[in-house]
Amino acid sequence: MSSAEAKAARRAKFEGVFEKIRDELVEHFAGEGMPAEAVKWYRDNLNYNVPGGKLNRGMSVVDTVEILKGRALTEDEYFKSAILGWCVELLQAYFLVADDMMDSSITRRGQPCWYRLPEVGSIAINDSFMLEAAIYRLLKVHFRTEPYYADLLDLFHETTYQTEMGQLVDLITAPEDKVDLSKFSLERHRLIVIYKTAYYSFYLPVACAMLVSRIPETYTVAAASGSATVKPYDLALSILLPLGEYFQIQDDFLDFSGTPEQIGKIGTDIVDNKCSWVVNTAIKLASPEQRQLLDENYGRKDAEKEKKVKALFEELGIRKVYAEYEERVVGDLKKKIGEIVEVEDGLKREVFESFLGKIYRRSK
Amino acid sequence: MSSAEAKAARRAKFEGVFEKIRDELVEHFAGEGMPAEAVKWYRDNLNYNVPGGKLNRGMSVVDTVEILKGRALTEDEYFKSAILGWCVELLQAYFLVADDMMDSSITRRGQPCWYRLPEVGSIAINDSFMLEAAIYRLLKVHFRTEPYYADLLDLFHETTYQTEMGQLVDLITAPEDKVDLSKFSLERHRLIVIYKTAYYSFYLPVACAMLVSRIPETYTVAAASGSATVKPYDLALSILLPLGEYFQIQDDFLDFSGTPEQIGKIGTDIVDNKCSWVVNTAIKLASPEQRQLLDENYGRKDAEKEKKVKALFEELGIRKVYAEYEERVVGDLKKKIGEIVEVEDGLKREVFESFLGKIYRRSK
Ligand SMILES: [Mg+2]
Ligand SMILES: [Mg+2]
Ligand SMILES: [Mg+2]
Ligand SMILES: [Mg+2]
Ligand SMILES: [Mg+2]
Ligand SMILES: [Mg+2]
Repeated sequence: MSSAEAKAARRAKFEGVFEKIRDELVEHFAGEGMPAEAVKWYRDNLNYNVPGGKLNRGMSVVDTVEILKGRALTEDEYFKSAILGWCVELLQAYFLVADDMMDSSITRRGQPCWYRLPEVGSIAINDSFMLEAAIYRLLKVHFRTEPYYADLLDLFHETTYQTEMGQLVDLITAPEDKVDLSKFSLERHRLIVIYKTAYYSFYLPVACAMLVSRIPETYTVAAASGSATVKPYDLALSILLPLGEYFQIQDDFLDFSGTPEQIGKIGTDIVDNKCSWVVNTAIKLASPEQRQLLDENYGRKDAEKEKKVKALFEELGIRKVYAEYEERVVGDLKKKIGEIVEVEDGLKREVFESFLGKIYRRSK
Repeated sequence: MSSAEAKAARRAKFEGVFEKIRDELVEHFAGEGMPAEAVKWYRDNLNYNVPGGKLNRGMSVVDTVEILKGRALTEDEYFKSAILGWCVELLQAYFLVADDMMDSSITRRGQPCWYRLPEVGSIAINDSFMLEAAIYRLLKVHFRTEPYYADLLDLFHETTYQTEMGQLVDLITAPEDKVDLSKFSLERHRLIVIYKTAYYSFYLPVACAMLVSRIPETYTVAAASGSATVKPYDLALSILLPLGEYFQIQDDFLDFSGTPEQIGKIGTDIVDNKCSWVVNTAIKLASPEQRQLLDENYGRKDAEKEKKVKALFEELGIRKVYAEYEERVVGDLKKKIGEIVEVEDGLKREVFESFLGKIYRRSK
């Protein structure tokens, strides 16, 4: 099997678990006596909004469990890890269905946004709620008797709250229809990215994998001074938040620099008034004249203005600033990862190396 | 102190707890490094949407704990019960902020709906999410070390899911803008009411009170045959769901029959195409001609059509049907309540009698 074939098989196996849990959710729903029309609706909601993405977040739960265990998983281990992976994907679906409404977006993953379907409309709000509720239904059915059940619930709750905090700050910092760059800054960008993206996309999958692998709250490792106490969840967080920030900065950079052939879409951050790393870096570097150009042209639905902004980004040397940032942050991350002391049943460097390997210098 | 003064003092004490938990939530949010503008936003969200209702659901947690314990509560017992009460109110706020968007409602509790505030708009979706997230933040801070913590989380999750199921069925049965009475029936009405209202308004507060009072999963009581096992949560459910159904049927009836002076608002169920007990009863009783009148006049934003529907309701004797229903259901409920065998640390009849007393023959 080629590497591409292996990757496709891995994805197909993970998608197979979606079918199971979708059927489980829908059968439970029908079993509550819900009418056929509602059963179909819920099934459509799940099918339309949950699979179909890149599935990186969900599959990274399974990958991380494999790395932590250092061996192939039994069928049962795979299934439980994959359920947690789909819970992460359900959480993302919950956020995205709502985010598209709040952003007045048109398409998502190459199809109309759910709320744009004529029969759906604002019912999409309740549909997003049900995607979230599905998480807790699945956790109850599959994890209720585990000693880490409450930890798992706390983890999902906290991550959800963090993401919503980030979403709020994003929404009031960069409303789609009102440009005010005085609210923007690299610090604000960092806060939004950590809360809105990094916790749920990077920390949540790894922490799920750590819980299901029974990594304890603390453990002891050998150290120069004899021994040291490790808090592995805090340690993972201290690497995964900057990693998530790097991922989003890269995403912002690719939106500006990537060709459509490369990134598979046309960047719209400039016309959408996004609080992107690129514009925040430009704001930091701009002269008063350049700042005025930004104020007058950023975030407008106008191709000419977009061009002017792009030209300014080039003039300010954003590409070089990004390249330097990338090398620096990757160096820092590698150093931190290298400092992890590996013990049996503890964290493994490879968990983080694997994420970093997938992200570093990616072009899409 | 007069009974009205005692009632006002009871409410004021409960409202005092809201101030505390709001400040606790806002301080935690600010402590996460959120910008001042976002802190103000979250505080406004909580203040605008959480208190200000009748608070029956929230205060019934405290009342029920008092009845179960058979004595006044200590300050700490009161505080914990009141927090659970506010969690129920937060859950309702979460639903209502979203429901108003989905129903295109204009006002709520005598003020514009949150999403109608010009600066809010669709950000209200994320704001509703944050009201829900606040529940789990409060439960974690105040109940994490309790042995019933996971039960409490399960209870809130399940109730949330049930309410969302009911909301979905309601939304697709009675869309605000498309009248199709062929979807209506008393059975459909019952399903919607039980799921959308009864679980969260009646079972949830009582089950919260039972958990915090440490009522066990099962206990034994004396019976004719020696002894019997009681499942108190199932028993409570078997009374509170029909009680909740009765409450909603009464609400539907008052929307039709109550004068504005009585109910403090003008009934709009007919023009709003609500899947109400009144129209479903009319559908059941209507001749083909009367049904045609309903099909042509129900759910239209037209005062003349509304009048015709009202006249038909009178013609069909809805008032008498309701009066008979009320006496029958109250009789059934009293019988069920009377059958409860009281033991120490078990369920008390008064829990249910107190609810019934507040509802029976109410006129607002
Ligand atoms: Mg968006
Ligand atoms: Mg957005
Ligand atoms: Mg992007
Ligand atoms: Mg409504
Ligand atoms: Mg509604
Ligand atoms: Mg009503």
